[in-house]
Amino acid sequence: MEPGPGEVQIRVSHCGVCGTDLHIFHGAMDKRVKMPAILGHEMSGVIAAVGSGVAGWGEGDHVTVMPLDPCGACPACKAGHSHICQKLNFIGIDSPGAFQSVWTVPAKTLLRLPPQLSLAHGALVEPLAVACHDVRLAEIRPGEHVVVIGGGPIGMLVALVARHAGGSVVVTEINPFRVALAKRLGLDAVNPKETDVVKFIEERTGGAGADAVFEVSGSKAGVAAMPHLLRTRGRMVVVAIFAQPVEIDLFRVFWRELKLIGVRVYEREDFAKAIDLAASGELPLDALITETTSLDGLSESFEKMDSGGECMKILIDCSR
Amino acid sequence: MEPGPGEVQIRVSHCGVCGTDLHIFHGAMDKRVKMPAILGHEMSGVIAAVGSGVAGWGEGDHVTVMPLDPCGACPACKAGHSHICQKLNFIGIDSPGAFQSVWTVPAKTLLRLPPQLSLAHGALVEPLAVACHDVRLAEIRPGEHVVVIGGGPIGMLVALVARHAGGSVVVTEINPFRVALAKRLGLDAVNPKETDVVKFIEERTGGAGADAVFEVSGSKAGVAAMPHLLRTRGRMVVVAIFAQPVEIDLFRVFWRELKLIGVRVYEREDFAKAIDLAASGELPLDALITETTSLDGLSESFEKMDSGGECMKILIDCSR
Repeated sequence: MEPGPGEVQIRVSHCGVCGTDLHIFHGAMDKRVKMPAILGHEMSGVIAAVGSGVAGWGEGDHVTVMPLDPCGACPACKAGHSHICQKLNFIGIDSPGAFQSVWTVPAKTLLRLPPQLSLAHGALVEPLAVACHDVRLAEIRPGEHVVVIGGGPIGMLVALVARHAGGSVVVTEINPFRVALAKRLGLDAVNPKETDVVKFIEERTGGAGADAVFEVSGSKAGVAAMPHLLRTRGRMVVVAIFAQPVEIDLFRVFWRELKLIGVRVYEREDFAKAIDLAASGELPLDALITETTSLDGLSESFEKMDSGGECMKILIDCSR
Repeated sequence: MEPGPGEVQIRVSHCGVCGTDLHIFHGAMDKRVKMPAILGHEMSGVIAAVGSGVAGWGEGDHVTVMPLDPCGACPACKAGHSHICQKLNFIGIDSPGAFQSVWTVPAKTLLRLPPQLSLAHGALVEPLAVACHDVRLAEIRPGEHVVVIGGGPIGMLVALVARHAGGSVVVTEINPFRVALAKRLGLDAVNPKETDVVKFIEERTGGAGADAVFEVSGSKAGVAAMPHLLRTRGRMVVVAIFAQPVEIDLFRVFWRELKLIGVRVYEREDFAKAIDLAASGELPLDALITETTSLDGLSESFEKMDSGGECMKILIDCSR
């Protein structure tokens, strides 16, 4: 099928499996996703065909997709927050995604991948853009103490981007495989089952507390710990998605005048920054990709991620 | 007893009864307050005697006290947050307060009350400084939609200061006496037992939501409602003190990229601003004072406030 006006057809190269896909797989977004669904939104590919009215793009271009299709008319869009449009179509969740060999999307969602960036690493741009957004909204400054609670793929990327911004980063994670991987990435990492993290951070910061904490574990324990890890006026960034209301110690929030910041997806500048960072070669992206498989291996990958086993980012090579 | 070096002795004129005093009365701060305690920290008075080494102050000066005595050496003080010093002595809670006819304090805690400000209104400067601090940290801009959950004395002052900053303010309050009083102050006020506040604010803001919400009720229902009243990137300000962890909808915080801001007491600039505002005559302070009594009436005042009855700010005239 030819791409329509304003559309582009992409031969998908690589597509990552995301925790959100996993949530959908489990039915946690039943209301939002119509079955059968084609998921996948962390992708790279090569343009195969260009629809009418599309300028600036041609066959063979290496691209990734910023999978947001805002309405442009709601109060959020009008306020300049179109990435969290009140009627957002998230391509790959609310409409068909990239777990297929050929994918057609609006040309306005494209971003160019530079030649020095491999298509495998290109599929990491989307989660990396999440991390860039989170670190930017947290306003991490050089020399600041940063704690990342939860060392999954997004947690690791947040930690790497925060470190790149000059932060002194500690990852807390209960999975020994992930603790070891964080250390291989050159990050400080502690297991809260073995270490009193509040005391550890207090000692590391001369009794002050950290400047910023990212909650990426999605756990009640993470939310409970968060305000106790921070200095006066420290920032808590809620990256994980909490389907249910969760208890937080507002006394500590008051006592230390803490800030809590909600963050969601990314804006265009975060995607651009993520491409630059990925292409710079300064981040150990290869170490994050623990497996590359074919579309036939997709449901097995879901199960593997689900088991909480020895994996980090799993890529699907859709060209195989 | 003469004031010591660096101290000043004040003949207390008026002193307000604060919700925090009430918490202490109920034993909620047993660990912090040694009994028997002299409470009281919302005061005005006239200097009666000046200790050695005190410059710039003399007998007969009208003053109020910013009741914070920070250590100057902890990480919070060093970071410039001495108002939330990690070893703060809050005069009137951690050390004796102003519910007495004569009070001795360090001269550095004094602020001058201008002649046009009555001593009764001078006793409102301290809670007004709380409101000035909260509105400043919330960065309220002219034309913004503001919701204040809880119309007690601090809630009313926050609403009045937010309106003075140019905000379009709605107070939500379940006590009919307070709803009526808010309306007498010229504020919009709704009772969540009668009105669907989320729908009310949505309609008032063209479907966007409010720019900022102040939680001053200290209720679980207030915390639950807070994130649902806000536009994308709106700000929640936690003014009330929550002794226990409380549930919050972090999904909504994520979905709309909301911010939550913890606020505590005030800084010197907030006190100065409060004195200017009180002296300007632009705030309806008389309407907030529902009763003035003597020191003999203090415990009766505690009971009256406790009953949630028909009162707002109760002042003790310590000169009677």
